[in-house]
Amino acid sequence: MELTTGNRIGINISSNGDKTFQAFDPSKNEYLNEKFTMATAKEFETALTLAEKAFSVYSGLPYVQRAEFLDAIADEIMELGDSLLERCSLESGLPIARISGERGRTCGQLRMFAELLREGSWLDVRIDTAQPDRKPIAKPDIRRILMPIGPVAVYGASNFPLAFSTAGGDTASALAAGCPVVVKSHSSHPGTNALVASAIIKAAKKTNMPEGVFSLLYLDHEGSVKLVQAPAIKAVGFTGSREVGLTLFNAAMTRPDPIPVYAEMSSINPVILMENALKNRKDEISESLASSVNLGVGQFCTNPGLIVLVKSDASRDFMESFASTFKNALPGTMLNKNIKKAYDQSITFLQNHPDVNVISKSSLASDSNKTEGQPIAFYTKGENFLTDKSLSKEVFGPETLFVVCTDFNQLTEVLKSLEGQLTATIHADKEDERNFTSIIQIISQKVGRLVYDGYPTGVEVCSAMQHGGPFPSTSFSNSTSVGTAAIFRFTRPVAYQSFPNNFLPEALKDLNSLKILRLINGKWTKDNI
Amino acid sequence: MELTTGNRIGINISSNGDKTFQAFDPSKNEYLNEKFTMATAKEFETALTLAEKAFSVYSGLPYVQRAEFLDAIADEIMELGDSLLERCSLESGLPIARISGERGRTCGQLRMFAELLREGSWLDVRIDTAQPDRKPIAKPDIRRILMPIGPVAVYGASNFPLAFSTAGGDTASALAAGCPVVVKSHSSHPGTNALVASAIIKAAKKTNMPEGVFSLLYLDHEGSVKLVQAPAIKAVGFTGSREVGLTLFNAAMTRPDPIPVYAEMSSINPVILMENALKNRKDEISESLASSVNLGVGQFCTNPGLIVLVKSDASRDFMESFASTFKNALPGTMLNKNIKKAYDQSITFLQNHPDVNVISKSSLASDSNKTEGQPIAFYTKGENFLTDKSLSKEVFGPETLFVVCTDFNQLTEVLKSLEGQLTATIHADKEDERNFTSIIQIISQKVGRLVYDGYPTGVEVCSAMQHGGPFPSTSFSNSTSVGTAAIFRFTRPVAYQSFPNNFLPEALKDLNSLKILRLINGKWTKDNI
Repeated sequence: MELTTGNRIGINISSNGDKTFQAFDPSKNEYLNEKFTMATAKEFETALTLAEKAFSVYSGLPYVQRAEFLDAIADEIMELGDSLLERCSLESGLPIARISGERGRTCGQLRMFAELLREGSWLDVRIDTAQPDRKPIAKPDIRRILMPIGPVAVYGASNFPLAFSTAGGDTASALAAGCPVVVKSHSSHPGTNALVASAIIKAAKKTNMPEGVFSLLYLDHEGSVKLVQAPAIKAVGFTGSREVGLTLFNAAMTRPDPIPVYAEMSSINPVILMENALKNRKDEISESLASSVNLGVGQFCTNPGLIVLVKSDASRDFMESFASTFKNALPGTMLNKNIKKAYDQSITFLQNHPDVNVISKSSLASDSNKTEGQPIAFYTKGENFLTDKSLSKEVFGPETLFVVCTDFNQLTEVLKSLEGQLTATIHADKEDERNFTSIIQIISQKVGRLVYDGYPTGVEVCSAMQHGGPFPSTSFSNSTSVGTAAIFRFTRPVAYQSFPNNFLPEALKDLNSLKILRLINGKWTKDNI
Repeated sequence: MELTTGNRIGINISSNGDKTFQAFDPSKNEYLNEKFTMATAKEFETALTLAEKAFSVYSGLPYVQRAEFLDAIADEIMELGDSLLERCSLESGLPIARISGERGRTCGQLRMFAELLREGSWLDVRIDTAQPDRKPIAKPDIRRILMPIGPVAVYGASNFPLAFSTAGGDTASALAAGCPVVVKSHSSHPGTNALVASAIIKAAKKTNMPEGVFSLLYLDHEGSVKLVQAPAIKAVGFTGSREVGLTLFNAAMTRPDPIPVYAEMSSINPVILMENALKNRKDEISESLASSVNLGVGQFCTNPGLIVLVKSDASRDFMESFASTFKNALPGTMLNKNIKKAYDQSITFLQNHPDVNVISKSSLASDSNKTEGQPIAFYTKGENFLTDKSLSKEVFGPETLFVVCTDFNQLTEVLKSLEGQLTATIHADKEDERNFTSIIQIISQKVGRLVYDGYPTGVEVCSAMQHGGPFPSTSFSNSTSVGTAAIFRFTRPVAYQSFPNNFLPEALKDLNSLKILRLINGKWTKDNI
């Protein structure tokens, strides 16, 4: 597979600009050869015009055709074979095995949405039939369906170069919803983006999709902000830092017509360890928790960055056990230089903090030429955490902070002080149940997902998943970026009143030809009308 | 029923402030006697603290208890009897018959949400059970449910002093979702607010709701903005002008933690009249359309403010027929002096516009002392409408603008030029079908509800209703403020991973004791697990 370095403007590869940039190999600490070309203003406009045009066709295609397109994308991604895995590993520093797993997830997501489209009940069809004789006024026939919102801009994430990038969860759910997608390539993995984009374009051609259903742009920061403000764009999917997420969010909110930016930004994913769980399962928890902190060099949105417990013999023993396991972790290559730099700065800040102590750290990076992050675990007291907001800032990398509370009361205060989170995890045993309910009560108001006796990393892709919580973990807590419900971010309901059957969308007709579940006069049924 | 004039801070009536205001009787053009007291900063804080406290209790109550509360509110509103109808008519200038109908709708909405809670399937429960043996990694048990978002601020609307005010659709849906409500009273009908608030408080006491589940505050503009920015508030429901809606929206978006403001703001509700419909049903359409323009003195969000047609003999005949019907309309009392003033200004602007002509108007106001609005219909050419944005601004009152296009092409250009709308209506007959599909294609991207051969006023309250469209008709086009789906504005999904059955919310347990529809491993079912 030959690597292209131009923007994908519909079916064309276009490199009219004179600004270029190179990808970086973080494990060798050197730039890669290819020069990728930033999109010109003209290329940018063309991509958006094509997306708008494509929308009027794509939004009206039968759902099964959209499903075929998604399946074809998955097929074409697999067709890229090892060249994709190798390029992705080169650009991200992630090992081939991890990339291979992520490719499986990416294709799995595409096929999951294809399946959702084929089943069809996600359309949330609601029909209230007419009652012409109702007094005092006749009741009209009203039929509601979810429609695609319009062209969507997707910003690739650094930490999931496949599963949250060019053909990742945001793209898959937007395409499933019926929205053309314009992807802003992530500067860390432009080659990976190019390869996946070529797979999407191939799939689009094979399944006769309209040109403009997908474009890929290489944009600098200014261009990224412009993309959110482009009139053609009607919604945005983003996974990344709080800073960039808020910049895009604010840019969207100050448009003449604000649009939703679904930004997944920042989370420290508290893990609450109850006394008896620690007593009974000290070694098991310390080993698994250390693994979770270091998984993927700590570069997951769900990385457990905060461990909350009450001071006791059990917690002291646990921390000792954790420390001795954790110090065996190895430094790992981080995704890029900026992430490594930000990580080192955060670590230095905590190391110099008067109220924070190191409880365990790995050996130093073996080679100072590499972009490696050093696993490290810190400790502070509950009262320090409560008074110093800087201690609750996300540190992106293999780091965690133990917060040791004087008593259960202080622990609940610590939990109450937290910002919104993607997840919270609790380890408790039978004897801990007395305090369990009040903890659940507090944290369920703070998070999108509660994990019992497990670890927050590893986000299952399924119908029941909720990956999104109160601000700042996401910009809209009523949305998810993982699982089938992610499709709803890119839809809006439209009601048809008193429409002749032949002008209604297929799913709203009397005959339920799609065989979907519909709410008819208050009853969910697959019956015809 | 004695009228109180203080803020309702939980169960207390509180008038500690020294700023007061009076309601106004628009039909007599005079202030009413009672002096209502603006909330002090302390009262404001107390209401919010109580709402936060109430949330932790109220959000956890069994759904049937919330349903009983909603039903009890409806009962208590009916208990207010004629005193409510009279006060409301006095403050709004709306006739008793209309208020009585609106009271029915208000109580109907409350009971509809009670019914929704009792049925329970709205919780959108999704369960994916564990697969401990799955390779390469075990699949955990994930169960997702909708949870209330937190305390909600509701801003009463001038044009629905009952159905979109203190106990209106926003309040009913927020309370149904499990969210305490703080209502900002509308300055036009403070007495009506007070009476309805007393009914809510009575109902809360009777059904043992926690104090703070409801409060009512009299606030000036500054206080209204502060309410949106109060940390305790997690979402906002608003129906009103574009200007105020945007002020609240922007205030919410610049919070340290942005929250959604569901604002229903501005819509001109285009009506498209096709040639053959006009030929065949000229008199029927002109009469009904004139009635729709003048219904409630034109003070509906769904008022048809734009009528689009192609120049032809049929359209000329139709406009003549419309003009002669329309001139028989009578001036009516508007809701308040500000609305009347804004209406007169808009009318004067259009009357002086060089490209706009009057095609019909009613007699003048019979009594210049009254706050009356004069029905008036204007006419302009398609090319003028396309070049002058000021002609597409909403005029709140009994006014409409005919846009006569040179041909079908220009008609589609006019439709494409429109901002987002709550509704679009089309009248077409068999012979018009050739052009029908392309029109539907354009307008379905612009609106929340399409009406065929009907009129946009009269919004049915039902499961299938969509009252909300692209900006500026609403701030979030994926939400509705009418119908059962309005509840989703005030919820967010929470997933429970690997939780023991006894710690799960009732609706997520293996035993489906609530007998609701749940998505279990991809299949919608009422079965147990």
